[in-house]
Amino acid sequence: MEGKHFEETAVAVLQDIILHRRDVRGNRFLSKPLEEEVVDKLLTAALNAPSVGFSQPWEFVLIRDEAVKQRIKASFNEENEKAVPVFSEEKQPDYIRLKLEGIMEAPLNIAVFYKPSDKPVLGQTSMEEAGLYSVVCAVQNMWLMARALNIGIGWVSILDAEKVKHILNAPMENKLVAYLCVGYTNGFYTQPELEILQWEKRKMKQAVVFKEGY
Amino acid sequence: MEGKHFEETAVAVLQDIILHRRDVRGNRFLSKPLEEEVVDKLLTAALNAPSVGFSQPWEFVLIRDEAVKQRIKASFNEENEKAVPVFSEEKQPDYIRLKLEGIMEAPLNIAVFYKPSDKPVLGQTSMEEAGLYSVVCAVQNMWLMARALNIGIGWVSILDAEKVKHILNAPMENKLVAYLCVGYTNGFYTQPELEILQWEKRKMKQAVVFKEGY
Repeated sequence: MEGKHFEETAVAVLQDIILHRRDVRGNRFLSKPLEEEVVDKLLTAALNAPSVGFSQPWEFVLIRDEAVKQRIKASFNEENEKAVPVFSEEKQPDYIRLKLEGIMEAPLNIAVFYKPSDKPVLGQTSMEEAGLYSVVCAVQNMWLMARALNIGIGWVSILDAEKVKHILNAPMENKLVAYLCVGYTNGFYTQPELEILQWEKRKMKQAVVFKEGY
Repeated sequence: MEGKHFEETAVAVLQDIILHRRDVRGNRFLSKPLEEEVVDKLLTAALNAPSVGFSQPWEFVLIRDEAVKQRIKASFNEENEKAVPVFSEEKQPDYIRLKLEGIMEAPLNIAVFYKPSDKPVLGQTSMEEAGLYSVVCAVQNMWLMARALNIGIGWVSILDAEKVKHILNAPMENKLVAYLCVGYTNGFYTQPELEILQWEKRKMKQAVVFKEGY
C-alpha cells in the first residue's frame, strides 16, 4: 500500500489527545513564554490542514504586544456586556461569573483569518463557505497539536470581528475566523468546564446520528 | 498538574497523522465495509470536538443505501458540470480529468449538518458563524481519526446543499456543512493530489504568518 500505515497505538494516542483537549481560559494560563520551536509546531500543524482545492486560504497574526492585546480585550469587554441580557435571568448571574477568555493572561494570541483567493477555487464553486471551513480545520489541527504539547488554547468568539480587523490592519477582503489565546497552563479540566458547571448537558450519540435520512 | 500530561511521543504521532492525512477520492476507495466499531470511533472523535458554549450543534446522517447515494451523485454531476466554465480555458481539461468525489465507491457516506440551537448559545452572540465552525472541528477530528485507522475520507463540496437536504429529508433549519465519503483505500498519496498534479502550489509559512498586525 502506498502511504504510511498506522498501528493501533496511533489510534489510542489520537483518541487520548481528542478526549483531553479543552478550551482554556485566563484563569488557567501561565505567563511562561512559548518557545519558537513550539509555535512552529503549531503553525506546521495548521499549514497541513485540508483545504478546498488545496487553496490554503489561511493567514495567522501572532500577537504578543500588550497594547494590541489591550485593544482586543476592549472589544471583548464590549461584546461580553452586550451578551448578558441575551440570556435568561436565571442564567445571567452564572454568565457574569464565567471567565470566558485569556487575552491578557496568555503569552501568545493568534488571530486566524480567511483570505479569499483572487481566482476560482476547485471545489468552492457550489459552496463558497468551504474556504472558511478550511481555515477552521487549520485551527483544530493547532488545537490538538497544542494539547499534545501540554499547551492550552482558548477560542474567543465574543469579539467584534470588524474591530479586530481594524486593530490588526487586516486587508478588507479578509475574514476573521478565530481568535486564539495560547499558552502553558496550570492544568487542564478533565471535562469541559461548561459541562462541569452544568451550563449545558452532553448530547448522546443516538440523539445526533441518523441513518439514510431524517 | 490537573489533567493528563502527554509525552513527546504523542506529539510525533499526531504530527505524523496530520502530515499523512489526505482527501481521498473514488479512484482510491475499496468496497470493503467499515466495521461498526470503526464507525463508532469516528463518531466518538466527532462528538468530542470543541463546540461554542458546549452547544454540540452537530448532526450526522450515515448513508449506505445505493439509491440515496445515486441521488446525491446526481447533484454532484450537475454542480460539477456548472463548475467547468468557471475555470480558465487552460485549466478546464485538467479539471474535467480529475476525479473529485467517491460517493458511489465509498461504502459509507456521512452528511454532516449544523443544527442551530433554539436558545441563546454562550460565545455565539457576537459571531453567529461560531456554531458552523464547531461542526467543522468535528469533521476534522473524524478525518484525523480515520487516517490513524488507515481509512480514507473525502470531503465533497461540489453539491447543491439544498438538494442534499431535500434528499435526506433534513429539517429546514439545518445547514449542510460537509458531505464525506468514507472507506478503506488502496493507499494514500504521499502529498496532496492537487500538489502532485501542480494544480496549486504549496504556500510557505513566511507568506501567511504576520506579527502584531499586517
